[in-house]
Amino acid sequence: MSTKENPYISLVGAGPGDVELISVKGLNRLKKAKVVLFDALVNEELLTYAPTAKKIFVGKRKGFKAYEQEEINQLLVDSANEFGHVVRLKGGDSFVFGRGMEEILFARKHQIPTEVIPGISSSISVPALAEIPVTHRGISNSFLVLSATLADGSLNPELKKATELKATIVILMGIAQLPKIVELYQAANKGEIPVSIVYNGSLETQQEVFGTINTIIGQNEQGSLSGPGVIVIGEVVSLAGNYPTKIYSESTSCCIL
Amino acid sequence: MSTKENPYISLVGAGPGDVELISVKGLNRLKKAKVVLFDALVNEELLTYAPTAKKIFVGKRKGFKAYEQEEINQLLVDSANEFGHVVRLKGGDSFVFGRGMEEILFARKHQIPTEVIPGISSSISVPALAEIPVTHRGISNSFLVLSATLADGSLNPELKKATELKATIVILMGIAQLPKIVELYQAANKGEIPVSIVYNGSLETQQEVFGTINTIIGQNEQGSLSGPGVIVIGEVVSLAGNYPTKIYSESTSCCIL
Repeated sequence: MSTKENPYISLVGAGPGDVELISVKGLNRLKKAKVVLFDALVNEELLTYAPTAKKIFVGKRKGFKAYEQEEINQLLVDSANEFGHVVRLKGGDSFVFGRGMEEILFARKHQIPTEVIPGISSSISVPALAEIPVTHRGISNSFLVLSATLADGSLNPELKKATELKATIVILMGIAQLPKIVELYQAANKGEIPVSIVYNGSLETQQEVFGTINTIIGQNEQGSLSGPGVIVIGEVVSLAGNYPTKIYSESTSCCIL
Repeated sequence: MSTKENPYISLVGAGPGDVELISVKGLNRLKKAKVVLFDALVNEELLTYAPTAKKIFVGKRKGFKAYEQEEINQLLVDSANEFGHVVRLKGGDSFVFGRGMEEILFARKHQIPTEVIPGISSSISVPALAEIPVTHRGISNSFLVLSATLADGSLNPELKKATELKATIVILMGIAQLPKIVELYQAANKGEIPVSIVYNGSLETQQEVFGTINTIIGQNEQGSLSGPGVIVIGEVVSLAGNYPTKIYSESTSCCIL
């Protein structure tokens, strides 16, 4: 047992999906991991950088959960105690609706050292990759990021308050709630505000829908799009444009590589 | 002139300061750049990855601006036309108070293709590196990021509305406005809310101050700290802790390398 590694957990944000949008530090940790616990939204190509690590899928697919959060917490701690260095790989950033802190707190209770390696959050980067800046001088000096629903499935009450702000509003996991969101804005007499929904942000399959509060439901239905979508509401949406080239270029075929 | 590269601008977010917190893609672009225009908050160690590129500092130091925004815009376009691939390297993420979109719009007007490579924003990552999650199930389902002042130097009016939200509040460039921020929260009867200020987030010199709205000014003065600071206000601040090890470990000395 003398070669046993000390238990250690690195919470790593994998970014919005494009394999190259992980941080250099996150990738370095992955290369040294003994165990990797990963979620559904993580680009699985990243796992090839940890060829000898034990890889455990702990995400949710088509409504089916591989593990409950409590089981993931326990698995993290058990894996660290048994194998040493564990990388917990999450989509986007672990602290933006990623339940990362629950895992840190559990590890802390079991006296396992942890570190946080931030990721590129979809909340900022997915709009950016559709050429929508969450802030822009003279247009928006703040942005609010929300989940559409709370843990119990009810509508996030902050959505109503969001309609009163000048801030750019970014809603994650909100497509199913789009009619309710539109209703709230219309009730606040804000039907003309520009809106975009960006699907599969940063991936080759990225697609964007543009409209206003009053038109976005129709626009979205026309697209018959699927995949995770980020909703952005605010005047900054009108700055987006595909001129002179589509802003996002797939890594392998990019014009400058 | 047949070997002349096509003009192209990559807007790259360098992350919060730690050199390893740039994205893999951002680093790859840097390695191929002919010209790099960089800001004051960028870790200059990154420039060593572009050894043959022409490097131009366009930031602001001790109140002295090397260039006005309009000059930076022009320099970007001129550099791309003259040398081909230009990397515009900004601290954090280019679209979070980074004026990145102004540069994209100017390039678009001059028909220079651009791409956005998102960065790890200080607004989320600096709290995270102090073990403060901007969201946490049951505690915070939203977060609002604001600049303390507007372009004209006046207090951001959204700060008053922020006191009415349940969201975690993250204020950038706000240390000088701390007394006014405290006043707004006290006027809203919210003096007991936990607050942290994180200085030099992600760097070896990172330091944190903790308190509540009522105590934070005193706590902050005791620290006699300097450098860029991120203010975080909300119940999530109380989750932070240094047990069992300081969450952030300097890359070179880290326990697992």
